[in-house]
Amino acid sequence: MSNEVPRSGTATAAPAGQFGAKILDMAHKLAQFSETPDALTCTYFSPAHKAAAAQLREWMKSAGLQADIDAVGNVTGRYASAAVGAKTVILASHYDTVVDAGCFDGRLGILTALVVTEHLHQTGRRLPFHLDVIGFAEEEGVRFSAPYLGSSTVAGRFDETAVQRRDADGVSLAQVMAEAGVDLAAIRRLARPPQTLHGYLEVHIEQGPVLLQHGLPLGVVTAIAGSARFRITVRGVAGHAGTVPMPVRHDAAAAAAEIILAVERRCTTDTDLVGTVGQVAVPQGAINVIPARCELSLDVRAGDDGERDAAIADIRAAIASIAERRGVTAEVTEIMRYPAVPCAPRMQSALAQAIARIGVAPFHLASGAGHDAEMFAGVTDLGMLFVRCGNGGISHSPLETVTAQDADLAARVLLDVLVNLG
Amino acid sequence: MSNEVPRSGTATAAPAGQFGAKILDMAHKLAQFSETPDALTCTYFSPAHKAAAAQLREWMKSAGLQADIDAVGNVTGRYASAAVGAKTVILASHYDTVVDAGCFDGRLGILTALVVTEHLHQTGRRLPFHLDVIGFAEEEGVRFSAPYLGSSTVAGRFDETAVQRRDADGVSLAQVMAEAGVDLAAIRRLARPPQTLHGYLEVHIEQGPVLLQHGLPLGVVTAIAGSARFRITVRGVAGHAGTVPMPVRHDAAAAAAEIILAVERRCTTDTDLVGTVGQVAVPQGAINVIPARCELSLDVRAGDDGERDAAIADIRAAIASIAERRGVTAEVTEIMRYPAVPCAPRMQSALAQAIARIGVAPFHLASGAGHDAEMFAGVTDLGMLFVRCGNGGISHSPLETVTAQDADLAARVLLDVLVNLG
Repeated sequence: MSNEVPRSGTATAAPAGQFGAKILDMAHKLAQFSETPDALTCTYFSPAHKAAAAQLREWMKSAGLQADIDAVGNVTGRYASAAVGAKTVILASHYDTVVDAGCFDGRLGILTALVVTEHLHQTGRRLPFHLDVIGFAEEEGVRFSAPYLGSSTVAGRFDETAVQRRDADGVSLAQVMAEAGVDLAAIRRLARPPQTLHGYLEVHIEQGPVLLQHGLPLGVVTAIAGSARFRITVRGVAGHAGTVPMPVRHDAAAAAAEIILAVERRCTTDTDLVGTVGQVAVPQGAINVIPARCELSLDVRAGDDGERDAAIADIRAAIASIAERRGVTAEVTEIMRYPAVPCAPRMQSALAQAIARIGVAPFHLASGAGHDAEMFAGVTDLGMLFVRCGNGGISHSPLETVTAQDADLAARVLLDVLVNLG
Repeated sequence: MSNEVPRSGTATAAPAGQFGAKILDMAHKLAQFSETPDALTCTYFSPAHKAAAAQLREWMKSAGLQADIDAVGNVTGRYASAAVGAKTVILASHYDTVVDAGCFDGRLGILTALVVTEHLHQTGRRLPFHLDVIGFAEEEGVRFSAPYLGSSTVAGRFDETAVQRRDADGVSLAQVMAEAGVDLAAIRRLARPPQTLHGYLEVHIEQGPVLLQHGLPLGVVTAIAGSARFRITVRGVAGHAGTVPMPVRHDAAAAAAEIILAVERRCTTDTDLVGTVGQVAVPQGAINVIPARCELSLDVRAGDDGERDAAIADIRAAIASIAERRGVTAEVTEIMRYPAVPCAPRMQSALAQAIARIGVAPFHLASGAGHDAEMFAGVTDLGMLFVRCGNGGISHSPLETVTAQDADLAARVLLDVLVNLG
């Protein structure tokens, strides 16, 4: 297959600027389907969600794809290869959103794939593999706390216990599926056999400030960071704020403060590492009482599991040392641990070469956020292309922005990668 | 008056041990009057509170005092002087309690005064001033958030706006008073004219660990610490815990952590100074979101207002510096400021001399907690005697303890001070 298109050649016959405006236009149109007025909210199997799916299918059909909506709501458009026994490259991301969302998170990836496959179709360019553009129905986990619902079905790793989860109205995912005539057997049939796949590519807004700060439109994702989460309970001794001298206090909040700063300090040593204490509380704290207890959360991520685990070990040691010195106890409970998911070297290389061919310096970075791509780890080779996120890097917010120019570059790079992908 | 008893003499004709067991016995009996089974709770004008008042009046009468309960529930027992135009020394503390209280907070002072005046009566010893033993009806402010209700009426500084306050059932203090046939005119009549007073003495458990740590039964209070309270709101920038690199974060909780440690560090420099951040919260904090806001409380106290205010100025400067360096804002709002109330040098000296006469090293300390005594600042000379608090210094808890031996020493010192008080 590698002979069809010369590796060194660029396939972006499309003139610069052709794709960008169209992608942004579709993203804004798709944002009209919302559960909330004056804001974008599109959660699993809501009327807005179903309307968005129908719109995507219509656009896919217009683009020349064989489009359909599957049992769980994934919208799939195939641009078939003429090759005998062709495998499939999946180009995907999700179309559900968080509450009061921006209009690019997830959707940028679907729409970029859409304009690129439309261009291939219009120019009559066939590839040695099928291209399946997929809009995954659910990634954010808003309605049922069952994230990656769409991509996990296609990757063959749907968590069947998730159907017991209920939305805010008490409706279970199982009920919603039963009403839609979907059963677990139907879900299992959605799984793609790994041997039929030739790779998975996802374009996504960065949702962070790194590209913006480097003045770069695009970035090659090296890995989706592995994360580990903990709950930390610090227990000291309560006391009257006026009567207990400072040197004899065992203040749980002061110990917690040292822990927060120790996390920050340790996680600032490696560029790829982040550590966050997002929840801090002194339960039943009073203005005139020395805190007896302080509850913290901890989230640590890195593109490399070894780097992350070394940081966690150092943080645990720091917590133990702080607790001992202050005469308090600190209980650290791990509540979650996901390994990092590396992107395939051949995909990273293909993306970097294509970026260089449009005259941009290739830049590599890890993804601190999770993405549908990680469901395909071990199933097929992954590649992810990040697009610069404006407004300081803000996402999950109506302030989320992507420029038409950056979207255009992303589409041109994706097109280039596809025609050069061996 | 100073000629009646030689200054150098000791008046404690009472054998050691006579008072202590009796004080503890009465404290335990008084604790039987409670709103809660298996715990001591005695809040303003509850049936338990009224029963405790009746018991105190009965004991006062048995001790030979002219006893009565006034309009707001203060129980007063007079041991009258035979001297013409005699002034009055008030020996007082409160008999209301917090919820799930110990049995010595407040009550120790009333009962110590009671056994001492009983001894004077039994031995036929008259003083050149009246002794008024007062059990104040309300100091803790539990029911109506109107602390010092009892002592403020006698001191002539009752806050008349407090009658609008309501208890947890919505009943106002004004209603409770109306039902008891009390009006503001009656309350105003309770105020003692300053020129009729010769001093105010209060025995109280320390409610802290200082005497315990020094191995001393008693301490002379130098001042009731002035306190200032603040609310601090730190505002940073929210962000995805995975996607925002550490160096570009503006984490409100990390800034708050630095502030907590700055408070601790600054307030550890002076022995008499304490600073407490008792409330810490990241509102709507999520495990995977960089905190955009963190709310803190701050309570700073010192026996000397200048020392306290210097600490506050340094803390404010530290907060401003932390906020600037981290690119966050920190709003500091003062919500309360009370000046320190110094104890009269002549009272401190009298207490220290009496302590020395029982063979104990006189030790001076500031009171970090507020007490009824402070209502009498500017009205008459104040003296306070602290009694060692067991169990690590815990109070406002059933774990609060005082030994019979320490209570006995307190009574002997009080007796000595009274017979030697010019």
